[in-house]
Amino acid sequence: MRLDPINLYDYEARAKQVMPHNSWDFVDAGSMDEITTRRNRSAFEALTLRPRFLRDNDDRDISTTVLGTKISMPVMVSPAAQHMNAHDEGELGTARGAGMSDTLMLVSTGSNYSMEEISEAAPGPLWFQLYHRGYKRSERLVRRAEEAGYKAICLTVDTPAPSPKERDLRNRFTRVLEQGNFREIDEAEGEIGGTDETPGFAVSSTAPLTWKELDWLRSLTNLPLVLKGIRTAEDAHLAVEHGVNGMLVSTHGGRQLDMTMGAIEMLPEIIEAVQRRAEVYLDSGVRRGSDVVKALALGARAVAIGRPLYWGLAVDGANGVHGVLELLREEVSRCMAYCGQSSVQDLEPNIVGIPQGWGRRLIDF
Amino acid sequence: MRLDPINLYDYEARAKQVMPHNSWDFVDAGSMDEITTRRNRSAFEALTLRPRFLRDNDDRDISTTVLGTKISMPVMVSPAAQHMNAHDEGELGTARGAGMSDTLMLVSTGSNYSMEEISEAAPGPLWFQLYHRGYKRSERLVRRAEEAGYKAICLTVDTPAPSPKERDLRNRFTRVLEQGNFREIDEAEGEIGGTDETPGFAVSSTAPLTWKELDWLRSLTNLPLVLKGIRTAEDAHLAVEHGVNGMLVSTHGGRQLDMTMGAIEMLPEIIEAVQRRAEVYLDSGVRRGSDVVKALALGARAVAIGRPLYWGLAVDGANGVHGVLELLREEVSRCMAYCGQSSVQDLEPNIVGIPQGWGRRLIDF
Amino acid sequence: MRLDPINLYDYEARAKQVMPHNSWDFVDAGSMDEITTRRNRSAFEALTLRPRFLRDNDDRDISTTVLGTKISMPVMVSPAAQHMNAHDEGELGTARGAGMSDTLMLVSTGSNYSMEEISEAAPGPLWFQLYHRGYKRSERLVRRAEEAGYKAICLTVDTPAPSPKERDLRNRFTRVLEQGNFREIDEAEGEIGGTDETPGFAVSSTAPLTWKELDWLRSLTNLPLVLKGIRTAEDAHLAVEHGVNGMLVSTHGGRQLDMTMGAIEMLPEIIEAVQRRAEVYLDSGVRRGSDVVKALALGARAVAIGRPLYWGLAVDGANGVHGVLELLREEVSRCMAYCGQSSVQDLEPNIVGIPQGWGRRLIDF
Amino acid sequence: MRLDPINLYDYEARAKQVMPHNSWDFVDAGSMDEITTRRNRSAFEALTLRPRFLRDNDDRDISTTVLGTKISMPVMVSPAAQHMNAHDEGELGTARGAGMSDTLMLVSTGSNYSMEEISEAAPGPLWFQLYHRGYKRSERLVRRAEEAGYKAICLTVDTPAPSPKERDLRNRFTRVLEQGNFREIDEAEGEIGGTDETPGFAVSSTAPLTWKELDWLRSLTNLPLVLKGIRTAEDAHLAVEHGVNGMLVSTHGGRQLDMTMGAIEMLPEIIEAVQRRAEVYLDSGVRRGSDVVKALALGARAVAIGRPLYWGLAVDGANGVHGVLELLREEVSRCMAYCGQSSVQDLEPNIVGIPQGWGRRLIDF
Repeated sequence: MRLDPINLYDYEARAKQVMPHNSWDFVDAGSMDEITTRRNRSAFEALTLRPRFLRDNDDRDISTTVLGTKISMPVMVSPAAQHMNAHDEGELGTARGAGMSDTLMLVSTGSNYSMEEISEAAPGPLWFQLYHRGYKRSERLVRRAEEAGYKAICLTVDTPAPSPKERDLRNRFTRVLEQGNFREIDEAEGEIGGTDETPGFAVSSTAPLTWKELDWLRSLTNLPLVLKGIRTAEDAHLAVEHGVNGMLVSTHGGRQLDMTMGAIEMLPEIIEAVQRRAEVYLDSGVRRGSDVVKALALGARAVAIGRPLYWGLAVDGANGVHGVLELLREEVSRCMAYCGQSSVQDLEPNIVGIPQGWGRRLIDF
Repeated sequence: MRLDPINLYDYEARAKQVMPHNSWDFVDAGSMDEITTRRNRSAFEALTLRPRFLRDNDDRDISTTVLGTKISMPVMVSPAAQHMNAHDEGELGTARGAGMSDTLMLVSTGSNYSMEEISEAAPGPLWFQLYHRGYKRSERLVRRAEEAGYKAICLTVDTPAPSPKERDLRNRFTRVLEQGNFREIDEAEGEIGGTDETPGFAVSSTAPLTWKELDWLRSLTNLPLVLKGIRTAEDAHLAVEHGVNGMLVSTHGGRQLDMTMGAIEMLPEIIEAVQRRAEVYLDSGVRRGSDVVKALALGARAVAIGRPLYWGLAVDGANGVHGVLELLREEVSRCMAYCGQSSVQDLEPNIVGIPQGWGRRLIDF
Repeated sequence: MRLDPINLYDYEARAKQVMPHNSWDFVDAGSMDEITTRRNRSAFEALTLRPRFLRDNDDRDISTTVLGTKISMPVMVSPAAQHMNAHDEGELGTARGAGMSDTLMLVSTGSNYSMEEISEAAPGPLWFQLYHRGYKRSERLVRRAEEAGYKAICLTVDTPAPSPKERDLRNRFTRVLEQGNFREIDEAEGEIGGTDETPGFAVSSTAPLTWKELDWLRSLTNLPLVLKGIRTAEDAHLAVEHGVNGMLVSTHGGRQLDMTMGAIEMLPEIIEAVQRRAEVYLDSGVRRGSDVVKALALGARAVAIGRPLYWGLAVDGANGVHGVLELLREEVSRCMAYCGQSSVQDLEPNIVGIPQGWGRRLIDF
Repeated sequence: MRLDPINLYDYEARAKQVMPHNSWDFVDAGSMDEITTRRNRSAFEALTLRPRFLRDNDDRDISTTVLGTKISMPVMVSPAAQHMNAHDEGELGTARGAGMSDTLMLVSTGSNYSMEEISEAAPGPLWFQLYHRGYKRSERLVRRAEEAGYKAICLTVDTPAPSPKERDLRNRFTRVLEQGNFREIDEAEGEIGGTDETPGFAVSSTAPLTWKELDWLRSLTNLPLVLKGIRTAEDAHLAVEHGVNGMLVSTHGGRQLDMTMGAIEMLPEIIEAVQRRAEVYLDSGVRRGSDVVKALALGARAVAIGRPLYWGLAVDGANGVHGVLELLREEVSRCMAYCGQSSVQDLEPNIVGIPQGWGRRLIDF
């Protein structure tokens, strides 16, 4: 039992103290009025657990697989840009921390270190998160990811337009750290290296991302393909028909469009639409082991954490990321014990109670 | 991307600082306990967006038409009295600001400048908002509006009795600026020039406004006729049968009767009653581009802003009004991008999620 | 338009300033955690108004009758003990204030002045509120009420056990003002003159109040009989079968039992049970004219005010009571104008919107 | 009528003042974010009372029986560890206080005094609460309980894993008072004497508690068997089939697993599952007499108090426990009077109103 920090909120409080104000806001802010960011939490907290007792589950198993890759716990690290905002170790620290916890990290296109550097440092499995900025660049990034041993491509679809956080605008936040994946490219070709998460960078309007580009990407690589940001049953249904292998249900932490439901509220309609034809993951708002159990009981295969990875990293580098993950591991395990569950891969749906009117389930699509 | 002010609430905060306390209260106050004023916001915020991705809508079109008049964005300027409370430019500034944004302004009967002066200053299209205070006066105002090139008459129906804001009473707010439309009339005939929005002026009890007066007005002019303030399916149904061309669903910003639903909550029952036989607009509570998209997805053709026009005007005259509108334009456009929509005239209804128990839809009328 | 006080809450704020702390608490407190007291308000505020426009109702009539007695407005004065806690004029002031507003006062058994003194001072009609404390005493009180010209007997049924307010206990509130109706009796017979509202007085356990006593009372007098405190459809149904003429739905201001619904929430099931076989009134939580209109639209014939009468009395004696009532008159009238209603005796039910899950309607009883 | 303390919250406030901070936190804390602890209250407060009047119930009877043992009121004392944290009298004081109120105390395995000492001191009936830590130890404890005259065994089932309160961790709360039941055992055998409620003590993983152990325990003793902590209809159904005589529905005060419903919300589904084949009790959140009446009207036979017993004990030893119970007795009696009920063993279900969406009733199990 770790005594200090006791929970993820402790990491949050400490990270806020050690990070520069503007970097903190960059990590902490949500889009516009930040209603979705808050709703990500309140939606989790409105779900109830229905514990089952008098079962022997001391040897419970919280390991699982994601697209065939074994992970020791159903919690992954979400792709997120510019980890050096939190700590000099940047993504290398995050990768090491995730590896120490035997789980998977999704590496952002906008990482400060290059995907090759991260791959070299990472003890555990990696997926590469792709921001599509044109065929040529996407192809190059995918090839590099293949060569560097990434096990899947995770295409972010929920950034059709730039959505700067208002706190960043208010702070005139302009710190642009080096983007590891584009050092040579930038010099050679002058390409735009920014991402939607970096204020001051325009998104190239000449690189639309549509189902056509998805089909192209699907044909480009044999790696499994995951879509990040799908928020409706309709899009989930289409995604399956277009051959994706997984979907990361996400509100982007409430950072890309305000006024949506919380991610966990979207999960039921997406699970229903997918009909087990693809794996479904979730991020946005996961702070407690009970959140993990709730998401899995509602049908997710695993969840991922975003802001908490920055918190851990800011507080103690790789060890902090590891610490955050281990707190969640312990909480997941304890929650499983209380719910009388032996395996995260085989949860009883009835361990979660859904209040009347929670979320909104689509019937037809 | 405008960096400062970042959103309409910034304009609000600054306007509060530059406006005299009593003028601020005159603009800011709602009726009685101001419950409806607050509900106008909470009702919008309870609706969720359901974004659709992987669509090419870089060339999205947010222009539309209202009664055949093209406007560059589905946001108009609501009729509101006495703009000189906010800035010396008064309605001339507002008209210029609206024109700079290529959208339509509704000019209040209670404007400080005359409708002719405003028309002369306005680069864009205008509608004339009419407070009926007797046949003779209404006819004269309508004729003047016709001659001055106003494109529609918008009859306010939701002021059957005076409803002074309690903050105005508490402030003993008596500043009565000149009413531009009644300079000569007042001298010549001693008519009552006040409006319901001006404390201290009695509403003439000899000028009832009923469906009979509406029919008379309908026959008086060939200009399109819009009703402002309809709040029920029943009245909307009757309005269509009486030949109106448009309806501005409105709570009057919560300024005329407390304890109603928010305007956006009234929209569904009215849309259902109207059955596309008239155009439906909405004001009251619009502060974000997502509000605009929500209203349009629920069936409104366009929305209008009230208090925010004062905020912009107070902060920077015509440029401020323009600034407010351009912020909304950008937010609407971004929201459309996220929702995968290409045209505000053809929105998919499913991009908005309605929580259980929200509003109240009338079945029979 | 009265400028000051502007609304009932102004009277409340001023009364709190002029009344001794303990007297204020005696008036203001609710039972136990005061949840019902607060719910009386929130339940009103959750109901919405659906205004109807374009109707000519300038000559609207808000007068009505209660059990055949004409009152100028559908707002009466609730029975409440010991008005001298608020002002030396006591019930004489209240009676004069109610009379100035041409409405009816219910005089409490626990008044500081005797019912005869009040009757003599009262310009308007009176009902006598009876606390049953044994056959002999009830008969004597009823006979005195008959002789003094009271027009109905209002039997309080919701005090089966003493329910001291915890604030009174905490204050060790012991001020027991003279009870006007028991001056001679107390001396002659040593009877218990206290009421449930007076801490320190035990309720006689030898005087149960049951349907049997109600039948006895019904047969005792030809005056109409009203029950105060009925809170369920079941009891309302029984009351009608036992021949009562009216029912005052009430939570006793939340002073007698915490954790019930608000009074307005009880109204629908009681209206349904009564089936127009008796008149139904309501008190508890009425603070705005819109509350009156809501209660009447849901089926009440009139409402009554409790704490606000103390507020008016404390601030300005009879004139204060009159002022409170006139504020409500004006608000009722304005609300009627907005709702397009011409007579309080013939309101359209659809002018009130009931949110999903509000209250709880009993089906079978 | 006790004047001081007036209600249980007064005891709480005073206990907080007299107890050391860390001991207070040990008693007051809930698990993790303490959402369930708060929900235990809000769920009670959302239920409404529907009082019935005009009934003669002056001789109402609030005594009942639990598993055949008569208690003077339907409020028992929950099992809770280490009463010496509150007062030196420890469980002896609690037992005396419960006895003074003629009600039953459940004695915790983790008591500071031994079950024999408590039994000797107790004027009233006792049940022994058992934490199963292996067959041998459980058998010995059960035999001792039988010999010491305990009338039932109450097996806690909701502690499958340690769940230290985060406040205890933050306080590094290590005060481990002597565990009366294990003085000799500890010395002789070095067994683990801790309970889940004591930080720093590991739960033996070699002593799983499953339905098999329950069957063994059922066959071990002729004493009635009660399960504490059942929270679902499914487990309640199984419990009945395994021959238990009673169930104490409980969230463990929100101390063992956060994010469940409040205990009172679980009651309906459990009552439905049990079908009167066992007695059902409830603890967690009972603070007012109305809570007791609500729980009983929903089907519980009696309730029990946890934290309030510490409050009473801390404030005034045995007299404080007695005081807490007597306050509840008076409140229960008054609530019964208002609800027109004569016997707690025969309550009308309709005296409680359940709001829409409250709790969640399972249909199939």
